[in-house]
This record gives sequence, C-alpha cells and structure tokens, in this order.
Amino acid sequence: MASGGYRFSVWAPRAQSIQLRILGPSDSRIPLSPSGNGYFEAVVETAAPGMRYFYQMEDRDFPDPASRFQPESVHGPSELVESGFAWQDEAWLGLPLEQFVLYELHVGAFAYEGTFDAVIPHLKGLRDLGITAIELMPIAQFPGDRNWGYDGVSLFAAHSAYGGPEGLKRLVNACHQHGLAVVLDVVYNHLGPEGNYLSAFGPYFTAQYQTPWGSAVNFDGPDSDEVRRYFTENALYWICDCHVDALRLDAVHAIHDESAVPFLEELGEAVHTAAAERMRKAYVIAESDLNDSRIVRSRELGGMELDAQWNDDFHHALVSLLTGERSGYYMDFGDLHSLAEAYREGYVYSGQHSAYRRRRHGNSSASLAAKQFVVFSQNHDQVGNRMLGERLSALVSHEQLKLAAGAVLLSPFIPLLFMGEEYGETAPFLYFVSHSDPGLIQAVREGRQREFEAFAWQGRPPDPQDEATFVQSKLNHEFKRKPAHEVLFQFYRELLRLRASHPALAHLSKQHMEVTVYAREQVLSLRRWHSDKEVLVLLCFSPSAVHVQPGIADGRWKRLLNSSDPQWLGPGGGVAEWLPHQDKALQLQPNSVLLLEREADEQRA
Amino acid sequence: MASGGYRFSVWAPRAQSIQLRILGPSDSRIPLSPSGNGYFEAVVETAAPGMRYFYQMEDRDFPDPASRFQPESVHGPSELVESGFAWQDEAWLGLPLEQFVLYELHVGAFAYEGTFDAVIPHLKGLRDLGITAIELMPIAQFPGDRNWGYDGVSLFAAHSAYGGPEGLKRLVNACHQHGLAVVLDVVYNHLGPEGNYLSAFGPYFTAQYQTPWGSAVNFDGPDSDEVRRYFTENALYWICDCHVDALRLDAVHAIHDESAVPFLEELGEAVHTAAAERMRKAYVIAESDLNDSRIVRSRELGGMELDAQWNDDFHHALVSLLTGERSGYYMDFGDLHSLAEAYREGYVYSGQHSAYRRRRHGNSSASLAAKQFVVFSQNHDQVGNRMLGERLSALVSHEQLKLAAGAVLLSPFIPLLFMGEEYGETAPFLYFVSHSDPGLIQAVREGRQREFEAFAWQGRPPDPQDEATFVQSKLNHEFKRKPAHEVLFQFYRELLRLRASHPALAHLSKQHMEVTVYAREQVLSLRRWHSDKEVLVLLCFSPSAVHVQPGIADGRWKRLLNSSDPQWLGPGGGVAEWLPHQDKALQLQPNSVLLLEREADEQRA
Repeated sequence: MASGGYRFSVWAPRAQSIQLRILGPSDSRIPLSPSGNGYFEAVVETAAPGMRYFYQMEDRDFPDPASRFQPESVHGPSELVESGFAWQDEAWLGLPLEQFVLYELHVGAFAYEGTFDAVIPHLKGLRDLGITAIELMPIAQFPGDRNWGYDGVSLFAAHSAYGGPEGLKRLVNACHQHGLAVVLDVVYNHLGPEGNYLSAFGPYFTAQYQTPWGSAVNFDGPDSDEVRRYFTENALYWICDCHVDALRLDAVHAIHDESAVPFLEELGEAVHTAAAERMRKAYVIAESDLNDSRIVRSRELGGMELDAQWNDDFHHALVSLLTGERSGYYMDFGDLHSLAEAYREGYVYSGQHSAYRRRRHGNSSASLAAKQFVVFSQNHDQVGNRMLGERLSALVSHEQLKLAAGAVLLSPFIPLLFMGEEYGETAPFLYFVSHSDPGLIQAVREGRQREFEAFAWQGRPPDPQDEATFVQSKLNHEFKRKPAHEVLFQFYRELLRLRASHPALAHLSKQHMEVTVYAREQVLSLRRWHSDKEVLVLLCFSPSAVHVQPGIADGRWKRLLNSSDPQWLGPGGGVAEWLPHQDKALQLQPNSVLLLEREADEQRA
Repeated sequence: MASGGYRFSVWAPRAQSIQLRILGPSDSRIPLSPSGNGYFEAVVETAAPGMRYFYQMEDRDFPDPASRFQPESVHGPSELVESGFAWQDEAWLGLPLEQFVLYELHVGAFAYEGTFDAVIPHLKGLRDLGITAIELMPIAQFPGDRNWGYDGVSLFAAHSAYGGPEGLKRLVNACHQHGLAVVLDVVYNHLGPEGNYLSAFGPYFTAQYQTPWGSAVNFDGPDSDEVRRYFTENALYWICDCHVDALRLDAVHAIHDESAVPFLEELGEAVHTAAAERMRKAYVIAESDLNDSRIVRSRELGGMELDAQWNDDFHHALVSLLTGERSGYYMDFGDLHSLAEAYREGYVYSGQHSAYRRRRHGNSSASLAAKQFVVFSQNHDQVGNRMLGERLSALVSHEQLKLAAGAVLLSPFIPLLFMGEEYGETAPFLYFVSHSDPGLIQAVREGRQREFEAFAWQGRPPDPQDEATFVQSKLNHEFKRKPAHEVLFQFYRELLRLRASHPALAHLSKQHMEVTVYAREQVLSLRRWHSDKEVLVLLCFSPSAVHVQPGIADGRWKRLLNSSDPQWLGPGGGVAEWLPHQDKALQLQPNSVLLLEREADEQRA
C-alpha cells in the first residue's frame, strides 16, 4: 500500500496491456503501466478497503492472482482488505519444533458453523488436551463453500465462507493467546480445476511434467523465477502477515523441479529468514512420498533443509498391524519389524524393494533427527481417501484405539492427531466438493466411482457434490462427553500429559531409544531415556494375552500407564504398580500399551 | 556362458513366453523358461560363437536387447561372439583423472576407412602430440552405417560397420599399449528412433517425462530397478569386458529421475567398484546442462559422485569472445568476466539470471576440483550443430586458433580436443544419418531445415541422409603436413608438452591460481603455481596490440611461449626472452597467448 492509496502490481508477461476495473456505482477503469520484467503497476490514491476490482485483459475480467479476499468466490471480483490487524500476540515467540503436538482440522467440518471464528471456542479444550498446534487443512479460496481445500485457486485469499482474511487473523491471534501454534496446509504442486486463471497472466504451468491433479507448476522452466516468487510470497504472506507458525507443504513429490537450486530449498530459506527477522520461529514441513532425506537434510549436506516431513511409512506400518489390511500400499507393511524400523530410523523403506511401487524405494533417514518426522495413526487422507471415509474408530476396537494412541504419542516423533480422533468421533470424513461447473461435478463423481470399483460390494461412494456428504463429515463434539468416548479422550489427555512432563518422553531422540521386537508375542518395546530418567513402552499387538520378559530385572520400575486398566475400560489385570527387580515375564493384555518408569533415584546402567 | 554352451537370459516382463530362434541350415526354436522377476532363461549346450539368433515373442523376431553383435544391423539377428580376447594390456592400470587430455573422435569420420582398426595407425601420432585419452563418440549399433551415434539402439553391440566387438577390443588394446586411455560416449537418456525394440520386452520407457529425442528412459517408475540394471550392466560391459577407461554420459539433464537414490549415483558407484576390484581406474564423466554441482559432489555431501562433467559455460565464454557471436546461448556470454569466472569457479552461471534460459541458472561450483571439469573450444556438438558444421578454423583467424588452444590447454581443467582441431582441419563436421525408414529420413531432413530456417540466407542445410554429407565430414590427415596447419599442429604439441612437463601447469588446482581481468585491454591473466614453480598465462583477446602491467616486477621471468612469435606464423615482436624485474607494461599482440615462468630459484612471495 502506497501512502494515501494502494499500489496494484501484477505479473502478467502474457498480457499486452492490463486495466484495473474498479467496481461500484461508477464503474471505472485505470490502465496499469508496465514496470519491467512482465509486471504491471498502478498506484490508486482513492482505493480503500472494501473496494472490489478485476484485472481486465482483452476485455475479459480476471480476479487478482494475489487477491487477499474473494467475497464472491473464485470467479468474482477481488476485494481490497485492511492490511492492519489489532494483533494481541506480541508475547508469542513461536514453539520449538520438538514441542509440536499437531491437531489437523478442517475449518468447514470441525465446528458446525464451519468458520475460523467457530474454531476459537474450542481452543481452550485443545490446549487442555495437550495439543500445542492446530494444523488447518488448506484454506485458500476454492470453488463453492465445501471442499477439502486442495482445489484452491486464489492462493492468497483465506476462504470467504470461512470468514476471509480477518477471520483467519482472529483465529491465529486467539491461538497464540491460548499458547497454540498454527500450521497451515498449502498446496504448491497444482491449482484446482475451477477458477484457475493464472495461465492468462503468465507461464505458471508447464507441460514438461504431469501431476495426478492437473498441470504441474513451472518451477524450473523459462520464467520460473517469477513463478517461484509467487509461491514464496504466498508462504511469506501467511507467515508474516497472518502470523502463521508453520506451513505444511502438500505432496512435494508432485513438485517437479530439476533445477540446481530447488524451489523448496529457496522457499525454506525465505521462510526461515523472514521468521528470524521477526524474532520468531517458523517451520516448513513437507508431505513427501519420496522417502528422500534430501528434503530435510541440511543444505551443507546437499539437502533442501526443510524442517520436517510427514512419515507415511510409520502410519502404514502401524495401521496394517491394527487392521490387518494388506491391499494397496499396505502390501509393503504388516510386519512388526516394519514398525520397529520406523521407530529406529524413520523411513521403513530406505532402499529396499517395495512390492507396491515395483522398485527399490527411499534412502537412509538414519541421520535425521526424531523431530524431523511427523507421525500419526489417522489424517485427512488416510481417513478420507477410503470410500466410506471411515475413521480408525470404525475399523478397530476400543483397545486398539488406545494402542494406536500410545504408539503415536509415546514415540520420539512429532505426533499429529486428526480432529475427533481423541474421542473416537464416529462421523466419517468423506470426500466433498462444491464445484459449480456441471461437467466437472460429473467428472469428479465418476472419478470417485471408478476409484472404488473394487469396493462395489460395499456400495457406491457418497456423492462428493451432495451437501449431505459434507454435513455428515462434521464433528459431533458432544460425543466427548459420552461414556466410552470420554474415557478415550481422557486417555489421550493422560498420554499427552506424560509426553510433555516426563523428560524421557519429552526429549525427542532416536539415539536415546532402544527398540526391541518380540516377534512371537507381537510386542514391541521402546526403551527411552534422558539424563537419569528412563521409561519403557510396551506395545502389544497380540490378539490374546502374552508374556514377555522385557529385561527390567536391573531396577525398580513403576507403572505409569496401562491401557488395559479398568480405568480406561480395559479388561484389567496383569501389571502391578511397582515392579521391583522384575525378572519374571510380564503379562500383557491383547492390544494394550504399557508405560513403565525406572525409579528416579536409580542410575541407568 | 555356461560350461559347454551359452546361457541366454533376457528380461521380458511383458512377454507371456519367449522362444530362442536359432538361425542356420536347421532353423530351430528353443523355449526359454521364466526364472523369476520377469527374466527368461535357457542354457544351450550346442551354441557357439558365430551362431545367429532372435528372441521370438508372439511369432515376431526381435534382436537380443543385450546383443553383443548385430552383423546385419539393428533389425537383423544377434550373433554370439567369443567372450575371450587376447588382451595385451596387463600392464595398463589406467590414468589418474588429472592426466587426461581428451581427443574426441568419430570412428566413422576420423580415418577414411571408418573402422576401429583404421584408428590404430594414428595412435602413435596422437600420443606424440600429447593426447592421453581418445574419446569415442557413441559406437552402439545404430541404423545404417553412418550416424553420429546418438541414435544407437542395440546398446551392447559395438557397431558392425566399425568392426564390431572384436574391432573395438583391438582398438582399446592398442590404445593401452600406446599408453592411451579410452573414453566411450554412452547414451542413457533415450534410444534412437529406428530399431528400438526394448518396449516389446519391458517398461524401459516412461510417459512421465519427455526428452527432445524420444521417450524418456524409466529410471524411477515401476520396474525401474531392472531398467537401471540394463544400463548399469551396459556400463560394466564396456569397462570390464572391453577394458574401456571411462564413460562420457551423454546429456544427463535428459535423464529424468526423482528417486531417492538416483540412477547416476548407482551407476558411478558400480563403475568405481568394478574398476577397484580389477585394480584399475575407471571414471564416469557427465555431459550436463544443469550447472548443478550435485552431479559430481561427493555422496557424503549429498552428491552423485560422478568424477567430472563437461563445462559448456567455459566453451561459450571463450568462443563468444573469439567469434563475437551473441545469438542463442551465446547471448549469456561475450564478456571477459564470464571467462574469468569459468577459470575461477567452473560454472559461469551459479545462480545468476540467464537471459537465454529466462530464469536463474546453476549453483556454486566453487567447491569442485579443477579436474572435475572438462573444457574445450570445440566438440562434435559445437561444430556439428551449426548448419554448415563449421569448425572454429572456418570462423576465426590463425592467431585466434592459437589463442583458443592456449586458453584450453593452459587451464587447470581437463582439456578436450575435437578430432582435427590440432591442425586446423578444414572439413566441416556435418550432421549425418543413414536411416532406412523413408518416413524417418524425411522427418530428419525437415527437422534439420526447420532448425536452421533463420539461417536460410546461408543456404539450406546439407542433406543428413546423403552419403556425401558424411564423406565431406571425414578428416584430411594430410593437412597436418601443410604449411600453416603444420605450425598449428606443432603449437598444440608444444602447449601439451608444457602442460605435461611444467609442474605449475600439470598441477590442476583452482586454488593455486589467481585470475585477473584487464577489461579495457581485453586481457585475462592466469597466475598458476605449484610448490616453488610459477607461471603466468596472458590471454589477449584484443583485436589490436595492447599494453598491460601484469605485476611481475618482483622477480626474473622467462618467456616459455609466445603465440605471436614468427615461429608460430605470428606477427612477431613484443616480448623478450628474459624479463628481469619487469615493472613496465608488456606489449601483447592481438589475439595472442603468452606464457611466462618465474625463474626457478626464486620463491613465490
């Protein structure tokens, strides 16, 4: 914003000329002037917040590619917004990465009202639960009011149905006041199929590569410097203007880029630099299917130096043990040793042959820090990409839900919960859209049906365009107070309390951990320590009670948590509160998690 | 080869069944048995060298993808060859990388006969000139008898017109006996357009990426492990069975591979391991347009650890100064500072914006060793991709040819000469093919004409399919004895003698070098030293005589070489044999190279 007005600036190397069309009682047009390098600019003294406008090229109206607000959605005019905001988060400096406990939520489906503001009343509860960061599924303006968010096209515009940029800022402000960080999921690998006008402005896309969802973004071809700048500035907008603490980059394996300085490396550096200048912390976390440590390795060691990455291998290893599923990518998992490898290394596949991929997959993640991996037993994809959107609570027993929670939350990695999992939400999380193009709607419907042809015996997938599909996916927060759900919720809370307060759990390290597999018994043990504190986590995947000798005869151990306790609606029995020099086998209940602590005044051998 | 016969093995995951069809008086068919992982095998006791065969799938005959010999070219049967050879190179252990002086030659055009054997009589002369390694343009069987080689399709078969595998081995054997290494140009980024039957066998190619020359090779998709194995075994065949010392990988920027362990990294490791097991040295040198140090950086630092790469930036910086050309990629060069940067760093573009590429280009090569760069003033592409295939000798003066030679050979990089440049060959090196498919022939003709539409004022490009185009491109070795040519030849010889014998020149280091630009005078100086030896190279690109003060007042300097001497048909004048404490300016003749040596008993300050 120039003093006394707005500076409009747009990169449009494909345009001969551009006019700013200001809507209102006196529809007016102001020509933009070329300012070099494909940019066009104008300073408009009379412009003020609330003004709606288009960029006009060859008599066609286009929303601003960098629009901050699209009050009439993706095809409508852009609206100028106040750039100031009454921030009250001066005291907030961000969170160390190792303290992140992520809670992934969809703004539309989390609270019934489906807005940023409607999330705010829940923040205290999340904080009490032990969450330290909410992670918003993508919020950039997408067509219609209902969408997972991966069809966003106006990348700088917080969605109007969610409350626009002001709503977002109110939510972030409230999070920080509650001591919660905010992570935002951003999609830089493609744009949605409806309302994507970027190609009218410049070569944002390339035919050199394909993505499963549409044209690949031009990150390494001619004119890619300015394309990169568009996405980098987008990241900085969320971090600097909206005070977001971290970005989750959707599917970086679909960002094709063979340049000598990859876009992701530049993006990470820009975010880190901007945060440092503001004396805050900010992180970039990648969703990556590549099992390539290069993504998060330091630049000194030839990496791109992003801060962390999602570890799907951990999910697949864990869930295949719980559900017994072996189709699709689960065919590569199902063995306790896979889960052990995920705890020890990070990637399960670090160069081995993958039957699912029909090739060797991955490189070693041994040198990566534990805090560089985000792990989960559920997330929007793992739930929502099932035909019926079943959460784990619909697939496994109450005992297994607690076991899954223990496996994730007692790990040395950054845990992520998917909204509602903490109380065993029963609503599905279905795939939903609200496109306006009838051809596209039909194509999405048919695509969804084709995708699940093999599951036809379960019925047909719900119609993604039907509003009911969306409404069905909303959380039922009142379940938190229903008997079994409340117990699960308290169990999560207790796990998170222990994780945060016990030094051997709070200290995230793969090196200060010993992983043991009891294959016959289907038990995995994690021995974790920090200075003179030590814990033993026993994860029992056996469907019947088993005995294991976990090698704790050398000290006095105390039971901190036993998921099979009646307190957690478990079958009870088995483990005493104190285990002094226990040299006999411990009995573990089916699908249970047991947490022991070595008595404090003892030194670890 | 199994004892008493041959083991036939072919990877053909797309085949239901395969028969070995043995040609001969009694045409016979032997079914191959599946041996797992998509392979089919048979041991044939009666098979012997000279036997011709096809693999038959669904009643169609295909040559063996790993055929060692295609006597009737790409569509014909494969022939079994003797795997033994009477090698006489036991004493040959290979060459340290820093001693390579490369001589790129096309087997068909180098000697009139166009065979491997016809190269042998020239080896002594090349060795006397100072060459230490010949680099063969690709020799894998391509359609017809005339081709640059980049249309090869039978990748294990040394071309029948060149003399087949036996001929190749005789040449390599002779090279080693002459103390010459052999580098082979191999094309792993695509296969030629005629006779490429690989897709009938398996998923060798992918639609995921494109190359300018045809389908991209499947290095990272499903089943890519076996595709990689095919290419890695190809490399090992040349290195282990044919005793080749190094591979030059054609255009690695067209090898698209997003896997966590790139093919190139695996390939380099396989070659290095195989060589080490044989107590020999072997190298992998990449042609790369990426300016990405990752290609040659150590694996410890996240690189692929190939040994060296071609540095086109050096060529463009040098040639644009000599010829004044500014079109195409030359638009990014033309400034003395570019050449200085190439000497100092390696890449000229290490992140700067390139007008030609319309984006930033490259990363830093400062940490790479001088011996990791191959430099040249001419090569097959730079000459042959001109419409009329003009060598530098047709474009610049005799003085400039000597200057170009000095710039390359007195650099601390691995120099490469293109056959004939050492005596100013006047034959062009034109683009030639000898396809048999009429449609393809026409397409190549038209493509060539389209490519040079902008040069229509120079006439039309010669017909690539016309045999005369090929014959015109053959060397005229007798020119070596013609007056000006002989002088140029002796000048190259003297440069190579000095390079090999003077410690300050033989020691390849960017660190032991100081590069100074005299911009007004158009002079570049390279001060190079090793222990107590020191030289000063002055490269004068000025079209008129200039004076520079090269800062040599601190010692007694001796003239080692002056290209403007009458001895080299230069205009003479200017520089005395001894320059004691020279504090006045030196006069440099137009387009000259001057080499000075600090007197030996002085220490460098």
